[in-house]
Amino acid sequence: TTLKLGMIPADGIGKEVLPAAQHVLQALGSSLPKLEFVPLLAGWEEFQRNGKALPDETVRCLKESCDAAMFGSVSSPSHKVAGYSSPIVALRKHLDLYANIRPVTSVPGLPGPRVNMVIVRENTECLYIKREELQTAADGTRIAFATRQISETASTRIGKMAFELALTRGKERETARNNGQEVLWKGKPKVTIVHKSNVLSVTDGLFRESVRAVKEGAAGRYDGIDMEEQLVDSMVYRMFREPEIFDVAVAPNLYGDIISDGAAALVGSLGLVPSINAGDSFIMGEPVHGSAPDIEGKNIANPIASIRSAALMLSSLGYIEQAAKINIAVDAVLAEGTYLTPDLGGKSSTTDVTEAILKKL
Amino acid sequence: TTLKLGMIPADGIGKEVLPAAQHVLQALGSSLPKLEFVPLLAGWEEFQRNGKALPDETVRCLKESCDAAMFGSVSSPSHKVAGYSSPIVALRKHLDLYANIRPVTSVPGLPGPRVNMVIVRENTECLYIKREELQTAADGTRIAFATRQISETASTRIGKMAFELALTRGKERETARNNGQEVLWKGKPKVTIVHKSNVLSVTDGLFRESVRAVKEGAAGRYDGIDMEEQLVDSMVYRMFREPEIFDVAVAPNLYGDIISDGAAALVGSLGLVPSINAGDSFIMGEPVHGSAPDIEGKNIANPIASIRSAALMLSSLGYIEQAAKINIAVDAVLAEGTYLTPDLGGKSSTTDVTEAILKKL
Ligand SMILES: CC(C)[C@H](C(=O)O)[C@@H](O)C(=O)O
Ligand SMILES: CC(C)[C@H](C(=O)O)[C@@H](O)C(=O)O
Repeated sequence: TTLKLGMIPADGIGKEVLPAAQHVLQALGSSLPKLEFVPLLAGWEEFQRNGKALPDETVRCLKESCDAAMFGSVSSPSHKVAGYSSPIVALRKHLDLYANIRPVTSVPGLPGPRVNMVIVRENTECLYIKREELQTAADGTRIAFATRQISETASTRIGKMAFELALTRGKERETARNNGQEVLWKGKPKVTIVHKSNVLSVTDGLFRESVRAVKEGAAGRYDGIDMEEQLVDSMVYRMFREPEIFDVAVAPNLYGDIISDGAAALVGSLGLVPSINAGDSFIMGEPVHGSAPDIEGKNIANPIASIRSAALMLSSLGYIEQAAKINIAVDAVLAEGTYLTPDLGGKSSTTDVTEAILKKL
Repeated sequence: TTLKLGMIPADGIGKEVLPAAQHVLQALGSSLPKLEFVPLLAGWEEFQRNGKALPDETVRCLKESCDAAMFGSVSSPSHKVAGYSSPIVALRKHLDLYANIRPVTSVPGLPGPRVNMVIVRENTECLYIKREELQTAADGTRIAFATRQISETASTRIGKMAFELALTRGKERETARNNGQEVLWKGKPKVTIVHKSNVLSVTDGLFRESVRAVKEGAAGRYDGIDMEEQLVDSMVYRMFREPEIFDVAVAPNLYGDIISDGAAALVGSLGLVPSINAGDSFIMGEPVHGSAPDIEGKNIANPIASIRSAALMLSSLGYIEQAAKINIAVDAVLAEGTYLTPDLGGKSSTTDVTEAILKKL
């Protein structure tokens, strides 16, 4: 059998870090099915070339013939451009990739607080439905409106994803403990619901209530999991003050976007944080960082977020050991500290770091 | 003449920190007009007592007979309560306090990065217009919608406020430099526009465009001010990675709420960060922290955010020197480090810290 992977580098450093992930996947060799990489187009640059940020062919190929995909990063125009709309937001919607899962883990050996949390971000609604309207007020000035949608269905399924993940993480920690490994998190698994229901009592009220109901309606399945809530402003504050108190955080789309960048700052660099966009039948890996036009083409982008995203994708596809192999190699390179890109204070290039990881595999 | 100040402690530690600010104001004695403090009701506790989170009498008194006001902090119910709505959000709207100005400054001597920025948060619209609706979807599940409003008028006036503040800060730094004082910020004054126009091209597009137009339409008045933009997720990241690059940040309501809690984490505690809610004809001081039910009634809340808010209020009323006197006293107590509340790692009480500040005045 073959594993067919759609590869969408898109813009900026996406074009440098996605090949790195591809090399690492290829290096796993016979421990995986034969890999077929299908290069696919999308992005702001593609829009400028051909007038479409997300070509139909890309969506068709992903839907009809790929087993999974990897996405790089997108640029956005510095001003409003008619007809342009973010292809990553569209892809998440088209493929119903309703969960964006973003593990944020500090690396033993690197400076900074110890963090081991995962952000489960709802990926299809909130302000990302892009229902916006421009009106003219009575006095001739402009006034714009956007609609924020929070549904019971989407909130429930993302809540379920968060509790399942908390369960899995709890089991993994138990195994690690039994193997004599040091485990950062001491307590019961925990799900933190992030919202702003003190202001948005209807929409965020529904989000929070739906997630709570997941636990309550699970016939005891989640009894071993603590559940708490944080207002989004307070969440950002707490993450920086005591990041070690978080295990799984579940949030509506925009809050999830914001807090995952915040969490990334804690572990030293956005260049380290991977994600997958996950639906019930498709997975797309994606580094959390953007297209970083300032360092594009210089071969200094950190490939680790992309490589870890490939590992996350693999483990979601069931290739747990292969994913672990990648993560162990990455951690070893980080712990050694010989090959680090400039975002981590090092002087190595994208290809140097990738080579170093390949050697550890 | 008399300066009549509405005092609204509201909930939780608001009732402990507002009296501290009042003592400090009183201690300024004859350097200020005669002060009259008018205690006013509002909050979740008031709602539970009398069914109104914001009594009409409070609004009437503020509008008709107060020169300025101080607000404490509000609690919110842990579940949706019919008829309850946040009184602070309502007050900002009723009094047209369209700008929430939040200076975040690190204290020399305390650990942490050096920060000296001010967040200018739009205070009347965005998702805070609270236009929300609950519907039932075709399949019987619930689906909620909220409207986010961004107007040219509100964005322009908040933009102007940000540029004016950048101008003032620039002049203050120049004066300080000429007096031989060390000044953290070396460059030109700078305004950073925070938005998410890569997703919200219409609403945040209008915000960004309106703020940019303030500079462009100012006939050169703001030529000495740099202008840059940050996406809100990236803003949170950058604030933690290199907080020293920010001077004035201007943001729509919700982003402003979130980034100011983030900035507070940088300087060691939310308990240090003051704000004023400012309109063209009224000023209300308000500490950025919440009602902190966990420490309520223990006399350990940090009074400094509230005391600094009083200073900010004074300086907006034109009492610049009196405000400076308060700030110098606060900084001295912080630098000494003898009297610190637990949020800063100390063991002192609210009243101890207040006394220490009073002694330095
Ligand atoms: C590029 C942008 C549309 C995107 C988002 O906001 O989702 C990015 O910030 C992310 O976190 O994946
Ligand atoms: C209490 C709440 C409504 C308020 C807000 O979101 O504005 C608070 O977080 C603040 O920052 O003043």
